[in-house]
Amino acid sequence: MTTTVRTRVAIVGAGPAGLLLSHLLEQAGIESVVIDQRSRDEIESTIRAGILEQGTVELLDTIGPASRARTVGHRHDGIELRFEGEGHRIDFAASVGRAVWLYPQHEVLKDLIAARLAAGQDLRFGVTAERIENGDRPRVIARDADGAPFEIEAEFVVGSDGSRSVARAAVTGSSTGGYFREYPFAWFGVLCEAPPSSDELIYSNSPDGFALVSQRSATVQRMYFQCAPDTDTAAYSEAQLWDELQKRVPGTELKQGPIFQRDVLRFRSFVAHELRRGRVALVGDAAHTVPPTGAKGMNLAIADVRVLAKALRALLLDGEERLLDAYPETVSRRIWKAQHFSWWMTSMLHAAPDATDFDRRRQLGELRTVVESEHGRAYLAEAYCGWPLDV
Amino acid sequence: MTTTVRTRVAIVGAGPAGLLLSHLLEQAGIESVVIDQRSRDEIESTIRAGILEQGTVELLDTIGPASRARTVGHRHDGIELRFEGEGHRIDFAASVGRAVWLYPQHEVLKDLIAARLAAGQDLRFGVTAERIENGDRPRVIARDADGAPFEIEAEFVVGSDGSRSVARAAVTGSSTGGYFREYPFAWFGVLCEAPPSSDELIYSNSPDGFALVSQRSATVQRMYFQCAPDTDTAAYSEAQLWDELQKRVPGTELKQGPIFQRDVLRFRSFVAHELRRGRVALVGDAAHTVPPTGAKGMNLAIADVRVLAKALRALLLDGEERLLDAYPETVSRRIWKAQHFSWWMTSMLHAAPDATDFDRRRQLGELRTVVESEHGRAYLAEAYCGWPLDV
Repeated sequence: MTTTVRTRVAIVGAGPAGLLLSHLLEQAGIESVVIDQRSRDEIESTIRAGILEQGTVELLDTIGPASRARTVGHRHDGIELRFEGEGHRIDFAASVGRAVWLYPQHEVLKDLIAARLAAGQDLRFGVTAERIENGDRPRVIARDADGAPFEIEAEFVVGSDGSRSVARAAVTGSSTGGYFREYPFAWFGVLCEAPPSSDELIYSNSPDGFALVSQRSATVQRMYFQCAPDTDTAAYSEAQLWDELQKRVPGTELKQGPIFQRDVLRFRSFVAHELRRGRVALVGDAAHTVPPTGAKGMNLAIADVRVLAKALRALLLDGEERLLDAYPETVSRRIWKAQHFSWWMTSMLHAAPDATDFDRRRQLGELRTVVESEHGRAYLAEAYCGWPLDV
Repeated sequence: MTTTVRTRVAIVGAGPAGLLLSHLLEQAGIESVVIDQRSRDEIESTIRAGILEQGTVELLDTIGPASRARTVGHRHDGIELRFEGEGHRIDFAASVGRAVWLYPQHEVLKDLIAARLAAGQDLRFGVTAERIENGDRPRVIARDADGAPFEIEAEFVVGSDGSRSVARAAVTGSSTGGYFREYPFAWFGVLCEAPPSSDELIYSNSPDGFALVSQRSATVQRMYFQCAPDTDTAAYSEAQLWDELQKRVPGTELKQGPIFQRDVLRFRSFVAHELRRGRVALVGDAAHTVPPTGAKGMNLAIADVRVLAKALRALLLDGEERLLDAYPETVSRRIWKAQHFSWWMTSMLHAAPDATDFDRRRQLGELRTVVESEHGRAYLAEAYCGWPLDV
């Protein structure tokens, strides 16, 4: 027997995009149901990185004190670009009067889930969407945690179900169709028990490849170094991992401690060919993925949601389709700027396996041009802290 | 019988770099001899483009009223970037309070030659350098216009003899050794009898490729469009040339007129592995070439010369070698910034033959990021008008 739920907006995927969307819709008095195939515990305990643009933090402020981005997260007023063994600070405050917050995505998710449940959101974990039926009354065909058929009938369906999106097929006609780029490298990420090696993030370009020195807390740190895409996480001993990291960050002695998590992050750029069809739209990773170098993934998802929430308000409260029709073009402008920024940071900082001596020197010439120019620093800072959400 | 001339500095090549160097040396009371294999008429009548950075114009001001850059040349306070059929002005004055001057290189050469001859410069045309002998008293081994052996014995030799430099071998050990990049496209350039189609330069990105709408005078115009590197100048009829140009500049109706010169400009980036060895140094195209998109070629040559003139003053007046020892590293900083800028403008504006749909959309995302940001516009304007000469 199939359980069928009726609502105004069905949201597939309880990531930052889906959860924030249900909040913004509720603010406008629009009911929604959110489903996710994972358990709440799984969502909240999968450790993920997070750099929040200032506009993202401001949008999260609207959920009230449940957002701990400003209290538990750390405001960062700059980053360091390091190359040829020298550090160069990009001072966000001085350049553009803005900042970012270091606040991991799984903490954002804890905040959003708590706030949505407190607000009485119909939020169902362990419910797996199998497909979306597009149409005037679109339907989400799913199975609940017990494997029983479960359906949502809605006026609109939003696919916020990540890079392996099921919803995408209802929009693009396939689960893969999109603009795509792969990179000849990946990041080897480690979590370790150690105090911070630096107060701010260090993006380090070195002849051995890129490394990112990040932070997590007073006792746990996150670091990454460039590796081949097919690298096995077991390929390095702990001592080798520290060697690999340290040689890419000359000039800073990394504070070492037991490494308790390792992962390899693939680099890919993707934008779905279509972002909305009829009564189904895509947001976040379901619509696009970016390589992690520019820290744009979660921020871009949240920027999508802000535009889509306005469009759904116009559609569902006023019967006005104009904003929804404009949704793909509106969000595409930011998506392609963010794709460029992510590609730029990636290509400026990494050692491409096929780089010639000319390429390598040009890259250093670019880094020097950026850090020696107040305009270059501001151009990078503006993008890193996030372009205005309203243009 | 060999004619031998003795001087303090032998300068091989009467291009902008060599001629300006002899002027700066004379200001310091240092005698030099300049030779060039071409005739004066050939040098002055070979029509070449020219965008002068503000610092270049200021340095040319030091030759006095002979420099007509400010009187005959035209100050440009901006350029237009065009993409997706829309123009976006980069306002140099508003962004960085600087400007460039449109003043062709052959006019700069007329000014410099007149000024050098008026100052009594030993400037010999039709003298072909065959090789440089490096050493404590370096020698230029040459033949005069009649084919007779001619030598210059000097305390220092400067190779300002262009991209097919003979002097380069005395510095790098070969005529080609350097960092190198080729591009999969070239520019088809035309000169035509027509009034200007635009007051300022238009750098146009289009699906059919790049075009540059430039100016020359009230009655003669210079325009370029992206073509394959092996394109034959005779491959197009006049009507086809206008079609190719016009379709790359949608939104502006080009003013047409008889085309009286056609050429194909190859795109290459090159930096010699060494820029000075013992008593021989390279400047300008002998040291490096850039693709024309950023208009950096002549400006970079003149920036080299400014640094080398200081180093030669210290060497020849004070016996101090420190600045000369630092010459390669000092000029390399600007050279690699200019190589990057030229590569950046080229890659941002041209249609690469192997570009994917992703690449094309990323490129448009980059153009949008630049023109929508005051910082992006200033970053580009600063480089285009020229970084400060003193840093």
